[in-house]
Amino acid sequence: MNFEYFTPTKVVFGKGAESRAGELIREQGGHKVLIHYGGGSVVRSGLLDKVCASLKNEGLPYVTLGGVVPNPRLSKVREGIQLCREENVDFLLAVGGGSVIDSTKAIGYGLANEGDVWDFYDYKRKAAGCAPIGAVLTIAAAGSEMSDSSVITNENGWVKRGYSSNYCRCRFAVMDPELTITLPDYQTQSGCVDIMMHTMGRYFHQDGGMELTDGIAVALIRTVMKNAKILKENPSDYDARAEVMWASSLSHNGLTGCGTDGGDWASHQIEHELGGMFDVAHGAGLAAVWGSWARYVYQECPERFASFARQVFDLDEADGGGQTAASPDASLALAGIEAMEDFYRSVGMPTSLKELGIDPTEEQILEMADKCSIHGGRTVGVIKKLNAEDVAQIYRMAKG
Amino acid sequence: MNFEYFTPTKVVFGKGAESRAGELIREQGGHKVLIHYGGGSVVRSGLLDKVCASLKNEGLPYVTLGGVVPNPRLSKVREGIQLCREENVDFLLAVGGGSVIDSTKAIGYGLANEGDVWDFYDYKRKAAGCAPIGAVLTIAAAGSEMSDSSVITNENGWVKRGYSSNYCRCRFAVMDPELTITLPDYQTQSGCVDIMMHTMGRYFHQDGGMELTDGIAVALIRTVMKNAKILKENPSDYDARAEVMWASSLSHNGLTGCGTDGGDWASHQIEHELGGMFDVAHGAGLAAVWGSWARYVYQECPERFASFARQVFDLDEADGGGQTAASPDASLALAGIEAMEDFYRSVGMPTSLKELGIDPTEEQILEMADKCSIHGGRTVGVIKKLNAEDVAQIYRMAKG
Repeated sequence: MNFEYFTPTKVVFGKGAESRAGELIREQGGHKVLIHYGGGSVVRSGLLDKVCASLKNEGLPYVTLGGVVPNPRLSKVREGIQLCREENVDFLLAVGGGSVIDSTKAIGYGLANEGDVWDFYDYKRKAAGCAPIGAVLTIAAAGSEMSDSSVITNENGWVKRGYSSNYCRCRFAVMDPELTITLPDYQTQSGCVDIMMHTMGRYFHQDGGMELTDGIAVALIRTVMKNAKILKENPSDYDARAEVMWASSLSHNGLTGCGTDGGDWASHQIEHELGGMFDVAHGAGLAAVWGSWARYVYQECPERFASFARQVFDLDEADGGGQTAASPDASLALAGIEAMEDFYRSVGMPTSLKELGIDPTEEQILEMADKCSIHGGRTVGVIKKLNAEDVAQIYRMAKG
Repeated sequence: MNFEYFTPTKVVFGKGAESRAGELIREQGGHKVLIHYGGGSVVRSGLLDKVCASLKNEGLPYVTLGGVVPNPRLSKVREGIQLCREENVDFLLAVGGGSVIDSTKAIGYGLANEGDVWDFYDYKRKAAGCAPIGAVLTIAAAGSEMSDSSVITNENGWVKRGYSSNYCRCRFAVMDPELTITLPDYQTQSGCVDIMMHTMGRYFHQDGGMELTDGIAVALIRTVMKNAKILKENPSDYDARAEVMWASSLSHNGLTGCGTDGGDWASHQIEHELGGMFDVAHGAGLAAVWGSWARYVYQECPERFASFARQVFDLDEADGGGQTAASPDASLALAGIEAMEDFYRSVGMPTSLKELGIDPTEEQILEMADKCSIHGGRTVGVIKKLNAEDVAQIYRMAKG
């Protein structure tokens, strides 16, 4: 399977790395900066002050725009574009997690292209460029700091859409694991699930595959699982924070998908609709639906799920013996799915909608399934192409 | 341990990828191209014609310069710089393996900087830029297609020196595994050793280290070992060629060193002097000296060598039992070193200078050791800082 791999983002990783933001913007040729951020924690922690000081040290003028919320909004993007145009901003600095970086990417598209920025997210046309972006990462989860993707929510109809292109890849990403130490446990663990799922989305592909890619993917998943457990006990373990943070970037920069068809992202798309209707953390939502998705589709490629069980959990045929399944591979596949759910539970993550704290009605399930399939206009996933009824059935299985 | 990671090279991987060279140069803004290559095989195989056709398709004018030899020469670099200046070349395309790409990088430095290009390799000053470079890779070994390094030999005194900077990283690298299928077995296996050693150079570090980096490194080494054995039996196995080719790039682009002190490159430096005095393939030379280097230094960090034995060869304390060593870790360390040498032998690679086909005199050993330490001016390695006498002793141990 042929592939392309392009990860131009310069990573500066380690304690105090945020003090280099100004120098890195200068290196990229920026003259006037927008500092884009979310809530008050960046202000309260003193991080915003540190970043501003770093820019002042380089004599770089800047304006600030906070208020980005999870599932970042189009209205904030438009506000950013207008501010940047008024202030002649030529470099965008995201200080935050995936939502802030995604909002910054959308502002970048808006600045570099004429017309309405929503057109790109609405599949109407393609962007011809993006203003240069840097990131100071504060949450290890989404991987947006090295990825080509961004997801924006249009409040007009509450439509959540993603747009991907190499133009929006960050010029640099500053990653200081210490910045993530104050995250609440639920958010830390939810981030770990998100990271693992970016790699698992690629691992469960239909066509292609490379041993080297599998080996890297398995190393990444196992490293995150081990360190998620360490952080459950000791949230301030710097080394564990560092492992998880670096994994967050490598899980979504393309490395773990080289030589595959891109993978199966159905469980992400199924979770997106949950996130749209209920207020749930993305990673926790993924944990809640993954097992049901896996049980619904594993018979399409039991040998791949069996490899997963062997490589990630060191299971073998003997471990699958208790299952009533169609074949030894199918039996081992089910044992692997159970092992992953056992892991989720061990770090306090839900494996059903009930554990996630929501109880959708049949009407809500049908509405989410309809939206997920864009009113029957598309299927999701590659292992099994799921239509609206398949998706509804997975929501039902996940109820718990 | 803090680190930086920067791999801007756009990889286009797969069958027939070489036909995209012209399009990729156009994307990078090139107008006039130097096609730089080595010997006649690129001509005879028809690859040069294919690449030229790809440039013609894009309306890109070009000049060609062949004749790059292993251990690429400064005189050829100077010839290339002069030709490019006369012809107003603004983009350099390397078609070949590590030697051709390194020669191209040196030409790039010469074009983008005033004064003598050898100054950079002679540690006299730093480059301020490099002309843009692309690569069509024909040998999986050196990893120069994604690395920041280049090594040039100055015929005046036969001095071989390396210079590294992010400026010279290829803008794109075209990798078609089919182009490597006609390589002779000895060169294929020598390339596999070179690839493994780029990762092992980083694995055996003194300070720092990350679990994720170790996991990726081990996956890479194991993948190369497995596929080297496959290629020993079936040189035209496309999938095995693809695994090895992708590993060659990932082994030297920085990924397998993230979070370490950079690693211990003593065995590479010890081999460099062998390569300078005798006509040996780089990878085969590395295989011939690695075991002796490892046995000379392992007592400085037996636990690291023991991890290597566990992670790469699935050995445990029981396997080290037969050794007379200072501790269980030391015993396991020695078992791991033996296992690596067993692997080298299994693919026809030498584990001594005798098997490499050379028999240096004591005088030659002292001369190589003196050169390796730059006449006593430096030590090599970090696990144990080796002076000229240490290096001489390793050559003696390696004689076999």
